[in-house]
Amino acid sequence: MAAAAAQRLLAASTKIVGAGRNYISHAKDLGNPVLKEPVLFLKPTSSFLHAGPTAGPIEVPEPLESLHHEVELAVVISRRARDVPEASAMDFVGGYALALDMSSNDLQSASKSAGLPWTLGKVQDTFTPISAVVPKSAIANPYDLELWLKVDGELRQKGLTSDMIFKIPFLISYISSIMTLMEGDVILTGTPPDGVGPVRVGQKINAGITDLIDVEFDVQRRKRSFPN
Amino acid sequence: MAAAAAQRLLAASTKIVGAGRNYISHAKDLGNPVLKEPVLFLKPTSSFLHAGPTAGPIEVPEPLESLHHEVELAVVISRRARDVPEASAMDFVGGYALALDMSSNDLQSASKSAGLPWTLGKVQDTFTPISAVVPKSAIANPYDLELWLKVDGELRQKGLTSDMIFKIPFLISYISSIMTLMEGDVILTGTPPDGVGPVRVGQKINAGITDLIDVEFDVQRRKRSFPN
Ligand SMILES: [Mg+2]
Ligand SMILES: [Mg+2]
Ligand SMILES: [Mg+2]
Repeated sequence: MAAAAAQRLLAASTKIVGAGRNYISHAKDLGNPVLKEPVLFLKPTSSFLHAGPTAGPIEVPEPLESLHHEVELAVVISRRARDVPEASAMDFVGGYALALDMSSNDLQSASKSAGLPWTLGKVQDTFTPISAVVPKSAIANPYDLELWLKVDGELRQKGLTSDMIFKIPFLISYISSIMTLMEGDVILTGTPPDGVGPVRVGQKINAGITDLIDVEFDVQRRKRSFPN
Repeated sequence: MAAAAAQRLLAASTKIVGAGRNYISHAKDLGNPVLKEPVLFLKPTSSFLHAGPTAGPIEVPEPLESLHHEVELAVVISRRARDVPEASAMDFVGGYALALDMSSNDLQSASKSAGLPWTLGKVQDTFTPISAVVPKSAIANPYDLELWLKVDGELRQKGLTSDMIFKIPFLISYISSIMTLMEGDVILTGTPPDGVGPVRVGQKINAGITDLIDVEFDVQRRKRSFPN
């Protein structure tokens, strides 16, 4: 798939499927049980914030003062995929991108303890900043990438995709056994957990895949289109 | 909006937003606290199963033997909606449909107690059977509708949309303050809780809005496209 075609995939996207807790931690015991299966959640495509010189900020809705940043390798699906075996799963990858899975841990923790859906902490507009799509051919080995994220110039996250627990063919096979993946759909493959933390209103995020992609986003208080 | 245009909206849909626990129960104390805000969750558009003479069955994935049926009024959004006030919210409605919010309570309960997302119990293919779209103009008062659902001819659910707790303008306003609603997006407004229960492999569902819409779906064991 050529670069232009890969880039157009995101315009057709109808869902974002996130995988949680999908990286080995080197620094801390998170107290989470070892997963037998990926933890999946959905984000809507209305949460995309496309990187670029004219990109608006990541918006922090009231009453929140901060969001958590999770830098992730995004996999962009090239065509309809249902019940795909691991052996052919990579045939359904059109490209990769660098994405931030922005989350409100406050909203998410409240939902979790109440047994409610994670929705509010994950789905809001601008909660999925994403780079341009790099065609699959540009990345020979997706487990040989360094993901990094800085807040106001200070390194917060640096991790290797080799620490991914459930690898891309497994994720595609598993997810496609639960729901059909469509052209342009995006899988967020999880974040290296060490250094995940809050970014506050007024700060700036830089993030990237070393030698391949870098993006920059301001973090601002969300302004409502009009008061309600 | 004309009937044909209303019908085409679903083809553009990029998300389904469900509202949970949004009806008064007349029969039982569900033990749920009174909600100050709607409980929202996402379903992907890949979960749609469009009604019609050639429609396939609602598919029950292994190892489940049944799914729970929830008959709901679906609201179909006609155009981009962000931070919409209640007063103008109905201007963003293109039409209505009858939808079934199929759920695996087993998968959902397991997720809830583990603090995990509700994903698996809600998102699978065919878990959102939906009728043709009726243009907004065909329904003068959306709170004067009778929803009903039968399993193998036996009445299981019958309820009035007048028992909806958070009404449509509130839902549109509230949801659009969290995420932009796009053309074709669908809001599932909740189910009358009395009579919600399991439907098993081999059974048939008939459901409708009295005098306006009726749909029929077989419930079958899901067959994988190919073994993995
Ligand atoms: Mg994440
Ligand atoms: Mg049939
Ligand atoms: Mg429901």
